[in-house]
Amino acid sequence: MRIGPQAHRSSAISAANEQTILVRGRVLTSELMGHIGFTDHFWLLLTGAMPSPAQRRMLDATLVAIAEHGLVPSVQASRMTLAAAPEALQGAVAAGILGCGSVVLGSSEAAGRLLARIAQRVDEGAKIEEATSAAVQALLAEKQPIPGFGHPLHKGSDPRAQRLLEIAGEVGCAGRHIAIARLVEQLLPTLAGKPLALNVSGAIPAALLDAGYPLAALKGVPILARTAGLIAHLLEEQQRPIGFVLSHAGATAITYDGPCPAGFEPSHD
Amino acid sequence: MRIGPQAHRSSAISAANEQTILVRGRVLTSELMGHIGFTDHFWLLLTGAMPSPAQRRMLDATLVAIAEHGLVPSVQASRMTLAAAPEALQGAVAAGILGCGSVVLGSSEAAGRLLARIAQRVDEGAKIEEATSAAVQALLAEKQPIPGFGHPLHKGSDPRAQRLLEIAGEVGCAGRHIAIARLVEQLLPTLAGKPLALNVSGAIPAALLDAGYPLAALKGVPILARTAGLIAHLLEEQQRPIGFVLSHAGATAITYDGPCPAGFEPSHD
Amino acid sequence: MRIGPQAHRSSAISAANEQTILVRGRVLTSELMGHIGFTDHFWLLLTGAMPSPAQRRMLDATLVAIAEHGLVPSVQASRMTLAAAPEALQGAVAAGILGCGSVVLGSSEAAGRLLARIAQRVDEGAKIEEATSAAVQALLAEKQPIPGFGHPLHKGSDPRAQRLLEIAGEVGCAGRHIAIARLVEQLLPTLAGKPLALNVSGAIPAALLDAGYPLAALKGVPILARTAGLIAHLLEEQQRPIGFVLSHAGATAITYDGPCPAGFEPSHD
Amino acid sequence: MRIGPQAHRSSAISAANEQTILVRGRVLTSELMGHIGFTDHFWLLLTGAMPSPAQRRMLDATLVAIAEHGLVPSVQASRMTLAAAPEALQGAVAAGILGCGSVVLGSSEAAGRLLARIAQRVDEGAKIEEATSAAVQALLAEKQPIPGFGHPLHKGSDPRAQRLLEIAGEVGCAGRHIAIARLVEQLLPTLAGKPLALNVSGAIPAALLDAGYPLAALKGVPILARTAGLIAHLLEEQQRPIGFVLSHAGATAITYDGPCPAGFEPSHD
Repeated sequence: MRIGPQAHRSSAISAANEQTILVRGRVLTSELMGHIGFTDHFWLLLTGAMPSPAQRRMLDATLVAIAEHGLVPSVQASRMTLAAAPEALQGAVAAGILGCGSVVLGSSEAAGRLLARIAQRVDEGAKIEEATSAAVQALLAEKQPIPGFGHPLHKGSDPRAQRLLEIAGEVGCAGRHIAIARLVEQLLPTLAGKPLALNVSGAIPAALLDAGYPLAALKGVPILARTAGLIAHLLEEQQRPIGFVLSHAGATAITYDGPCPAGFEPSHD
Repeated sequence: MRIGPQAHRSSAISAANEQTILVRGRVLTSELMGHIGFTDHFWLLLTGAMPSPAQRRMLDATLVAIAEHGLVPSVQASRMTLAAAPEALQGAVAAGILGCGSVVLGSSEAAGRLLARIAQRVDEGAKIEEATSAAVQALLAEKQPIPGFGHPLHKGSDPRAQRLLEIAGEVGCAGRHIAIARLVEQLLPTLAGKPLALNVSGAIPAALLDAGYPLAALKGVPILARTAGLIAHLLEEQQRPIGFVLSHAGATAITYDGPCPAGFEPSHD
Repeated sequence: MRIGPQAHRSSAISAANEQTILVRGRVLTSELMGHIGFTDHFWLLLTGAMPSPAQRRMLDATLVAIAEHGLVPSVQASRMTLAAAPEALQGAVAAGILGCGSVVLGSSEAAGRLLARIAQRVDEGAKIEEATSAAVQALLAEKQPIPGFGHPLHKGSDPRAQRLLEIAGEVGCAGRHIAIARLVEQLLPTLAGKPLALNVSGAIPAALLDAGYPLAALKGVPILARTAGLIAHLLEEQQRPIGFVLSHAGATAITYDGPCPAGFEPSHD
Repeated sequence: MRIGPQAHRSSAISAANEQTILVRGRVLTSELMGHIGFTDHFWLLLTGAMPSPAQRRMLDATLVAIAEHGLVPSVQASRMTLAAAPEALQGAVAAGILGCGSVVLGSSEAAGRLLARIAQRVDEGAKIEEATSAAVQALLAEKQPIPGFGHPLHKGSDPRAQRLLEIAGEVGCAGRHIAIARLVEQLLPTLAGKPLALNVSGAIPAALLDAGYPLAALKGVPILARTAGLIAHLLEEQQRPIGFVLSHAGATAITYDGPCPAGFEPSHD
């Protein structure tokens, strides 16, 4: 069954024959392995070009920033899955990645689209303050959250966000998207009636878009980074398991409030 | 419901308060972000210690080696999934990771267990040739494949495997596991009656175990590396879609051979 | 870390103690097992009440309709995943389910929301023709697809859609949502300039909403149904494997069009 | 790249043209939809034949038995995933299915293989008591668990297991596999030194193998059944969310025991 148009039938990422593997046009074994790091390789895979040192340092900083933040929901889902299905590490990693969604972790992408939309208005001639204010007010009018701002634990300020902006300055790639992100943070107390600090999922797209990273691959950054954190948790889970402790604690926190035959007492253990 | 023993209730990977995030005991923003690369961070997450330069170079080389090899099954599964469900990039990545199994990609782990088992026999006093020969013969006797040897495309020699061993020599971490892997390759023509070249999934554990990487996290290397490749393919899928071309070609290659009412002709489109 | 409000801490689906398991307030072993079928149980799980015979027959018909349609993308992703990772049947099923997205299979949900939106306008006093026409025109104006209409193979008419509407008539639950679906189909040649037949993903929500099935669980119908089809394909894959035939055919259909060193010839095998 | 042998290139499950969809050789719309239930359809999909009434009743009873058991790990993983990624119901279902592993839920398959292995010995001439005793002793000698026996909550007796055996008697399909399962339960106090009651994951394969259900599809029963339960939980999660309550309770149950800079206090909220 043909679904959709099928005219396009090519891919530009990799090719191989018995002797040689090409990745983005380079011979994997002689040009890449041993010469570049994994972060360079990720940038090359995405864009077809090697990153500049500033681009690599910025991408490294975002991956390091977002790889790990303790027993967040996706890590718990992943550890419970390994406890139940130890035969498939890949399944436990997949369960954790499935929690990189629009509410948790994946908001980098929505924040990036907001910043890029404002930047485009500026390109088309709008003043940066006006374009930013209009975009924020539009979201508030629809009672939408402002993606990339506010954090349940780091309420006053997300230390990772501040550090990412600082690194962007150090490596010399701070530009328009960071300026817009700072402006949103300044405007929020007035427009929203309360301060909402720039969080790591707002700082990542600000810094990476300024560095030339592709907008449509933004969600790949928390996904790749979190995969590293998940693998570390799954190694610990094999050695010091807590998966079923987590599920027991979760179940104990919830009460059954459905109908009940007379005399039935749910187990509390 | 308590499943299993629940005495152990701690984790040593990360902790946080409003101002500070610790990863493996280090302050994320001041000690790690901007100072180390993502590969260092992955090693730190797994082991609790920073890698030596040799360890980092070896881990980088393996991640670069295995990140991408064209339209392999897991990449096709991932691109088809994005074509069908473009709203969830994380779902398409997860579908691809689920294909890092015991037959494809995940054989690094089985190969690592084989090498480690032989190395342990040597530690216990066996001669390396005898321990290696016995382990290979045991697998052959059970008609099991030798994990880490043979490749459907790179039949004579897997160029990535050779390059990884070369890099291990360059960075000075070639040791016993690599020696065992070479020995298996030498013995196979005699023991199995045909040559089977060391492949990338055999060279990765050989080089990483010699570098001190944890055995139980070996499968994490192809999983993390392939996540980078998958994200690149999914970025291309958004821009130049082929997901439904792949599924159309697949369906066309298969004939229906079940029962059929008289006169029914399956669509060939 | 507390994410979001946490006031609500209960669940009404199931409770248990050592002797008794309650599901939706009924004793599983004495009231449900052996007395009801799986389709009844699914309805009970979702709604807390037993279905009427008409509701059960309608739900059965939709599950039977959508469980299987040959080597669609999600089935291919699932079979390739099992070929690569035979140790984890659950991983292969999960890979297939991840393809129940907004474009393929999951459009039942979008179609249901469209029908429900129009029905609500009618409840608020609009005439059914006007409300339907306005909703369709709004989608067309934004160049959005009309969810539930058109099919790449069943172009003139989707036989499953027609049969579902017929069954709805037989069991006596055809109502307003089916009327709206028929009306959309009638209006499309004029409004869109071309006929687009009601497809199975449009007929499922029309029939189920008329039967009283919950709107927010519509996507569960193709997911549950397709799980049955996936398990059948995975049983066949264990016995008569084609997973790597599918991936070979897919890869062969795609040309590498990236940069290439002089003299490199990709393998065509 | 050709992986493995590719001679086999057919599938017997489904075929279609523009007017007609065949499933297992039957015309879906006229022969199946409206005439059979989803449980019949699942059996047909798996085996190519319609179930007898006894087979259908037995399969229904097992699916009803295992669909739901409260906030088990896979349900929690699924609800947390939906809370984090509400845009993809299919992702939350997949995360839950990934927990149908060898330790939880998936033990039906291992138990079925044990029963089938003993049954084969009996076919080959062994006495049932001796074959059963030998198989159990072999597992105990290797310190392996006896799959299908023992339950963390239902310690004295799993009420679902008893009910399944009762239904097998009622529908007239109790046979050798059930006899073997009962025998294992009788022998365990002596052989293992403590009683271990037959659990639902032992009774499912005993009853289904006696009914003629295919051994290699046993794991499909808990997977399909649990998908129904997961969808019910995800509907509740949309209406009365507890996903982040679960993860907060889990995180609170675990202490950080890694290294710590002087003066650092983890947040307890």
